Amino acid sequence: MSVQTLLLDFSVDPARVGDESGQKTVFGQLETILKEYVPNLILAADINIDGGSLKLLTGKKGTTVSVRMFDRGLVTVNIEYYKEDTEEPLISFKCCKQLESSVKLSMDCDRLKLMPTIKRGYKYDVYLTSSDERLLEYDIDGVLFDEQSTFQRVQIVHSKSLGNMLVLDDLQNISEADLIYTETLMQRGRESYEGKEIVILGGGDGALLYELLKEKPKFVWMLEIDEMVMRACDTHLRSICGDVLERRKGDNYEIIVEDCMVTVNKFIKENRKVDYIFGDLTDIPISESACGELWEFMITILHASFQILKPTGKFMTHGNGATSRKSLELYEQELEKLKPPVRFTKSKAFVPSFLEDWIFYQISFKSTDNGDA
Amino acid sequence: MSVQTLLLDFSVDPARVGDESGQKTVFGQLETILKEYVPNLILAADINIDGGSLKLLTGKKGTTVSVRMFDRGLVTVNIEYYKEDTEEPLISFKCCKQLESSVKLSMDCDRLKLMPTIKRGYKYDVYLTSSDERLLEYDIDGVLFDEQSTFQRVQIVHSKSLGNMLVLDDLQNISEADLIYTETLMQRGRESYEGKEIVILGGGDGALLYELLKEKPKFVWMLEIDEMVMRACDTHLRSICGDVLERRKGDNYEIIVEDCMVTVNKFIKENRKVDYIFGDLTDIPISESACGELWEFMITILHASFQILKPTGKFMTHGNGATSRKSLELYEQELEKLKPPVRFTKSKAFVPSFLEDWIFYQISFKSTDNGDA
Repeated sequence: MSVQTLLLDFSVDPARVGDESGQKTVFGQLETILKEYVPNLILAADINIDGGSLKLLTGKKGTTVSVRMFDRGLVTVNIEYYKEDTEEPLISFKCCKQLESSVKLSMDCDRLKLMPTIKRGYKYDVYLTSSDERLLEYDIDGVLFDEQSTFQRVQIVHSKSLGNMLVLDDLQNISEADLIYTETLMQRGRESYEGKEIVILGGGDGALLYELLKEKPKFVWMLEIDEMVMRACDTHLRSICGDVLERRKGDNYEIIVEDCMVTVNKFIKENRKVDYIFGDLTDIPISESACGELWEFMITILHASFQILKPTGKFMTHGNGATSRKSLELYEQELEKLKPPVRFTKSKAFVPSFLEDWIFYQISFKSTDNGDA
Repeated sequence: MSVQTLLLDFSVDPARVGDESGQKTVFGQLETILKEYVPNLILAADINIDGGSLKLLTGKKGTTVSVRMFDRGLVTVNIEYYKEDTEEPLISFKCCKQLESSVKLSMDCDRLKLMPTIKRGYKYDVYLTSSDERLLEYDIDGVLFDEQSTFQRVQIVHSKSLGNMLVLDDLQNISEADLIYTETLMQRGRESYEGKEIVILGGGDGALLYELLKEKPKFVWMLEIDEMVMRACDTHLRSICGDVLERRKGDNYEIIVEDCMVTVNKFIKENRKVDYIFGDLTDIPISESACGELWEFMITILHASFQILKPTGKFMTHGNGATSRKSLELYEQELEKLKPPVRFTKSKAFVPSFLEDWIFYQISFKSTDNGDA
């Protein structure tokens, strides 16, 4: 079951809908067309509203059609109906196209837009959001895993073009098509991990650990809090994480399932330092100022991390979408406040499952010169 | 000016909304929350509908809120209001997030979804569609060109991540970020164009011609019908077409502005044959069968093209989105009907401005063996 919402809108000369009688005429024309597409339409309400009017029609199978006419020359038409999964849509794709051209032709409109039908309340959600809050419909055609952990909603969905994809709290995380994400995060080919000690903060999908182990590090500690993420990825994202999540530890790696700060604080206490730290936790929060719980969490992590990093070490992390400039700037301002002072380089990559360019940071202490400034 | 449409929906235990009194209770709870976000809300209509009910509220500045309750346990809430471009949204992004969590918390719902606010009737449209009719919101922030030619609506819009982009009849065509499109179409590095004679059918954006000329061909005829497309691209897409559209002809190329079939038929009559033909006209139509005007047009072009192709020649063209398998299959079936028989290879590339993988075809006569079968 799902509700199908069709959004149509068009612009006409404001003079045509500037008063009640004009709106009545335009509505009459529109109603004639709508009746061809929605059976048994009848007028259920006609309301005068500040700046225009709203006419409400009901039709077959509880279909509702609301026609909102704005004095300023804009008309929005929202058609909504209930559909069982096995039923054909009340208005097929072909009929939508016909409706669109009928309205365009008959209403003599300057501009008209019919959106692809929006599906609501379906057994899986195909609408995800970009970092700058744009609406993106994915070609998701199934859900393989959907559970609520102590920390978040964990889903593995299948996309026709991306393969299996991890979605955490409705945020696309990583898919089988995203090797570029991990390779940009770790700067494959530009950094040498051979014989190095590495800490991964988070990284529950296992992809980063899996790729790092190919580079023969001395030891990798992966600190992930959410057991359920690892279980979901181990089962459904094998192509990106191999068997590292199943094995949990090996000669040169160990996954510690707890709040990453526990191990980080232990390392601080022991004065133990590593070569690389990966921040693979939450993204830089999208906000106008560096305030709030998420920012505080991120800043705390940053400070602690640099305390367990060798002078020649690097902190590697993902930032946010390239168009979210304000948040990236705020993050860079936080980096500038760090003591001892740090410097950073940035990389950009288009991440297939994000459908946008993403920014990655490589941060090191300013005082050392390791030749890549 | 634009109309802002907020779409919220959630699922509750069907027992809670299975009858009139249950729906009244749930609506009462919801109304209390909505009143915190939309000033002056009053109930304007309350209608019983097949399978549920619809309550309509109106508020400040002509805001309308429709609450559709389906007996089956689904509730959709559509909030719509008018906004001048200079005005702040009635419900800010932050408030949307608060509304979302308020409803989630108070309504005890199994599932809840708030879509990013949909903007309708704005001076430019940010919603484009993928080949498989998915809704994609682009980061378009301006329009540089918008005119209706004899053939189509020609727009150049600006996207934050893609740069300038050509949009024809609301279909994304090419952007400044799409060199991969042209390079995959021409199979750069796999095909040698040096000293070759080439015909481009369409190609009005000039990108293909511009890239081909870098490969020192003997001569390129570009046959484009729409003068306006070339004017728009010459002004706003210089980074992808250089000055080829301005100059119109050079030592080794000529742009002929007319129906491509005129020149193709002339070549047939003169028994003139070329090394490469590029089909850079419309995409393969998305349909269930190879019928209709667009399919006929495409098949006619295909037949004619092979008549002006040398036995060793190749017909290179773009197909459609990789997920539109049915249409690609239909196209391949049409290729199999060609006489003399042809064979083809395929390439796939993710085209940034399409936000999806695209399929490209390289077609040659079966009887010749040029070593790339």
